[in-house]
Amino acid sequence: MSGAIKKFIPLFDRVLVQRFAKETTTKGGIVLPDSSNVKVLNATVVAVGQGARNQNGDIVPCTVKPGDKVLLPEFGGNKIEIEKEYFLFRESDIMGKWSE
Amino acid sequence: MSGAIKKFIPLFDRVLVQRFAKETTTKGGIVLPDSSNVKVLNATVVAVGQGARNQNGDIVPCTVKPGDKVLLPEFGGNKIEIEKEYFLFRESDIMGKWSE
Amino acid sequence: MSGAIKKFIPLFDRVLVQRFAKETTTKGGIVLPDSSNVKVLNATVVAVGQGARNQNGDIVPCTVKPGDKVLLPEFGGNKIEIEKEYFLFRESDIMGKWSE
Amino acid sequence: MSGAIKKFIPLFDRVLVQRFAKETTTKGGIVLPDSSNVKVLNATVVAVGQGARNQNGDIVPCTVKPGDKVLLPEFGGNKIEIEKEYFLFRESDIMGKWSE
Amino acid sequence: MSGAIKKFIPLFDRVLVQRFAKETTTKGGIVLPDSSNVKVLNATVVAVGQGARNQNGDIVPCTVKPGDKVLLPEFGGNKIEIEKEYFLFRESDIMGKWSE
Amino acid sequence: MSGAIKKFIPLFDRVLVQRFAKETTTKGGIVLPDSSNVKVLNATVVAVGQGARNQNGDIVPCTVKPGDKVLLPEFGGNKIEIEKEYFLFRESDIMGKWSE
Amino acid sequence: MSGAIKKFIPLFDRVLVQRFAKETTTKGGIVLPDSSNVKVLNATVVAVGQGARNQNGDIVPCTVKPGDKVLLPEFGGNKIEIEKEYFLFRESDIMGKWSE
Repeated sequence: MSGAIKKFIPLFDRVLVQRFAKETTTKGGIVLPDSSNVKVLNATVVAVGQGARNQNGDIVPCTVKPGDKVLLPEFGGNKIEIEKEYFLFRESDIMGKWSE
Repeated sequence: MSGAIKKFIPLFDRVLVQRFAKETTTKGGIVLPDSSNVKVLNATVVAVGQGARNQNGDIVPCTVKPGDKVLLPEFGGNKIEIEKEYFLFRESDIMGKWSE
Repeated sequence: MSGAIKKFIPLFDRVLVQRFAKETTTKGGIVLPDSSNVKVLNATVVAVGQGARNQNGDIVPCTVKPGDKVLLPEFGGNKIEIEKEYFLFRESDIMGKWSE
Repeated sequence: MSGAIKKFIPLFDRVLVQRFAKETTTKGGIVLPDSSNVKVLNATVVAVGQGARNQNGDIVPCTVKPGDKVLLPEFGGNKIEIEKEYFLFRESDIMGKWSE
Repeated sequence: MSGAIKKFIPLFDRVLVQRFAKETTTKGGIVLPDSSNVKVLNATVVAVGQGARNQNGDIVPCTVKPGDKVLLPEFGGNKIEIEKEYFLFRESDIMGKWSE
Repeated sequence: MSGAIKKFIPLFDRVLVQRFAKETTTKGGIVLPDSSNVKVLNATVVAVGQGARNQNGDIVPCTVKPGDKVLLPEFGGNKIEIEKEYFLFRESDIMGKWSE
Repeated sequence: MSGAIKKFIPLFDRVLVQRFAKETTTKGGIVLPDSSNVKVLNATVVAVGQGARNQNGDIVPCTVKPGDKVLLPEFGGNKIEIEKEYFLFRESDIMGKWSE
């Protein structure tokens, strides 16, 4: 993880993720072109906001943390390019995480 | 249940379910093709999120649990393929469950 | 009431009802075909969910109970076929009930 | 008020009303046909639900009661035929009442 | 104010008002026909409901009272004819009042 | 400020403002016609309502006060003519104020 | 930062920002015309409102402060010209900030 991206702090319940690299070979060993139109839904959490506000205005911490492997929804999120390509999602839009 | 899917933890009030297998013979014994267009609405709960947040931001645990047999709504849910085909539903969208 | 349907437990504030049988003769004694397009709005409550959650996430029990005769709204509800034809309605969509 | 209708209990904040009879003569004494297209907005409250739930799920009793003369909104309400023609309105949709 | 209208009690936060009479002469003394299409936005409060319910279901009294001179919004309100022409507005839709 | 306008009291969180006079000469000294289509967004607060109600129905006082110089949004507000031209805005629609 | 802009105080949870200057040369050293259609999403916070109201009407202070370097969303915000070009955003629309 580069120093530049470490320094980005999402606001509220936003979560910064980096999608897994696209698989470039099929199970049968066929090499896929980089431009294959397969959306990668698995991602690693890179940075997490402090949390959303509840109705009293208090901060409710996020339940995911940097390093978590998560499953993204098919649509949504904001692309951010800081050296590499990252995405910002609201925590509540993330489908789930993979335990170790 | 495979080890891979055991390791998926839905976020908040999401519920991971696996639909029952399609019936491949009618009551009269006619064999149905696998592609018959009948949607299976009964499913088994495979994994359950911690629960949704209430207005204070506290987690409210789900009322369904892994192993429950549930009735799904006709529409909605997100398909997830992890070895087999699974679906994610919000707990509040599940119609009901079958007691034993 | 069959054993099968007894075992269905609606989730939250959903109410499972069975519509009254269609009247098959008019007041004047004319036999109506079974396919007459009259919607039966009276129904018997068969099963009731635990209740909806309030803003704190606590369960608020339903006010109708199995056996109640209720008046359904003209539209809405989800048809469920379990041996016979049943319908699921949110409790708040039910118009009222008939006291004895 | 018939015994049949007495036995209908609206759910929550619904109010069952019976519209006043249409005036069949004008002030000048002209007899109006029964089918004249004048909507009667004054009505008598016949039955009242227990009240709506507040945010905690507690019941908040209605402020109108059976026997009240009320002014209905021009649109809305659900027609119910039980021997005679009645209408169900949400209490909050009723415009006001006539004191004695 | 007639006895008839005195007896109308708006429900909740509804306010019954009577618009000011249309000015029938211009500043320059020209007589305007009664049908001139100028909407009168100033009105006198005739009757006031008990107040809207807050989230707990408690009544919050209105801040305007009978006799107040108010400024109405250009659109909205329900016309009611009881001998004369009156209008019902939600208190929160009233723009302001004129102090003495 | 005329006596007439002083006597107008906005309801709830409404704020009565008077837009600054249009500049009639450009920086270069060119005289602009009065009808130039430039919207003036700076305004002076003339009168302020008691404040909006919170969820309990209690009044929350406004944060702007008569005499404040404010920046209006480009759209919205209600024009009111009382001798001069004034505008009513919800306090939450006002963009900000100018400190001295 | 000029004295003029220092004196602007956003209302509630609005944040006044100044976008970074557009880069006028590419990495390869090609000079870009000033009118190049690249939206600058990084900005410096110039002024911050007191904060939004929570459900009780109490002010919840903003989490960003003047001097913070923030990442803006691609769309939204209100342009304000006070000598230079500034933008107003709701704090919750700001994507994140850059720590030092």
